[in-house]
Amino acid sequence: MTQPDYEAEVLRVWAQHPLDGAHDLGHLRRVWRVSKTLARQLGGAVDMELLEAASYLHDIINLPKDNPQRRHASALSADHAVRYIAQFGWSSERLKSLHHAIEAHSFSAQIAPRSVEAKLLQDADRMDALGAIGIARCFSVSGQLGRALFDPDDPLADARPLDDTTFALDHFEAKLFRISETMQTLPGRAMAASRVQVMRDFVTTLVAEVA
Amino acid sequence: MTQPDYEAEVLRVWAQHPLDGAHDLGHLRRVWRVSKTLARQLGGAVDMELLEAASYLHDIINLPKDNPQRRHASALSADHAVRYIAQFGWSSERLKSLHHAIEAHSFSAQIAPRSVEAKLLQDADRMDALGAIGIARCFSVSGQLGRALFDPDDPLADARPLDDTTFALDHFEAKLFRISETMQTLPGRAMAASRVQVMRDFVTTLVAEVA
Repeated sequence: MTQPDYEAEVLRVWAQHPLDGAHDLGHLRRVWRVSKTLARQLGGAVDMELLEAASYLHDIINLPKDNPQRRHASALSADHAVRYIAQFGWSSERLKSLHHAIEAHSFSAQIAPRSVEAKLLQDADRMDALGAIGIARCFSVSGQLGRALFDPDDPLADARPLDDTTFALDHFEAKLFRISETMQTLPGRAMAASRVQVMRDFVTTLVAEVA
Repeated sequence: MTQPDYEAEVLRVWAQHPLDGAHDLGHLRRVWRVSKTLARQLGGAVDMELLEAASYLHDIINLPKDNPQRRHASALSADHAVRYIAQFGWSSERLKSLHHAIEAHSFSAQIAPRSVEAKLLQDADRMDALGAIGIARCFSVSGQLGRALFDPDDPLADARPLDDTTFALDHFEAKLFRISETMQTLPGRAMAASRVQVMRDFVTTLVAEVA
């Protein structure tokens, strides 16, 4: 299978339910590119074909952020990916490994990634929430959900609890900066730290502009 | 009048029609702050009370970006502001000057700002589309309108026409960077240039992450 095969299958399934703007083919391609980069930096044996399939299919069942069924999406994606890939003659062991990598990728599944491919997929997927792309995705999703940019009276939440269902900028501190602490691989941790710095610099500039 | 008076009037009117996330009290406060900063840097005689009223009331009739009546919004806001301020005993000359500043602030009105207050308001309003706040607003509004972040095949539109109704990032080149060329005051031009640099650095970082 190649990129066009995976993307055709993803678009076929996505056409059946509504999308959020932060999950598109661009996200899948970025996850695969970052997975590859991190795998190269990590060295050692990585099943790159499995990692590519997992990267392209990990969000194939993609429920909106405010859908209460969202925590089951990674298990549903894993099931779908295995059914799709099974037709190409993979061994049942590799299919199980693909299932695990996809099922374990999401926060809400609360499953610890056991294989190197699962760890790389989880790091690469989370990486897409950090850096300049993380900034763009956070404000885009917040706009979609009707959230304000930030609290004009207290943008950094110095004197109030964080509230990222109301303010997009609060999501940086409430969730995004913490993602770097969940990275499973050393190269993932290094890349995440540099992307968090991009975001912190952005926040400093933003606050200077609006204060 | 003070900030709470203006904000109460704005919220009263805004409660009657739907809002977009980029226009909120935060925008009005930022426009007033930046107006003040630019007026100070400019030196010379500026009617600061008029500039404050214009800053707080310039978007009081706020039509969504995709509403075909949007080009009349600044004239409607000017009419409303004059009716509201008239009760506080301003001279008819100052009311006319307030009307002109608000009416001339928007791109779509295509009215050249003649007074220093009109120039400062226009610069301060446009400044809010630039810099880190400009990045945040652009992606938030794009999310609201269901636009993609960028073209994954050609993020910088190297080999295709710009299309900012499809891709948020295209809006930087299609409109936002050009705003700095429309600045009416010298301090406005300097501040805009530094904010455009923030955006260009962001684009460079983003493209390096996703390419």
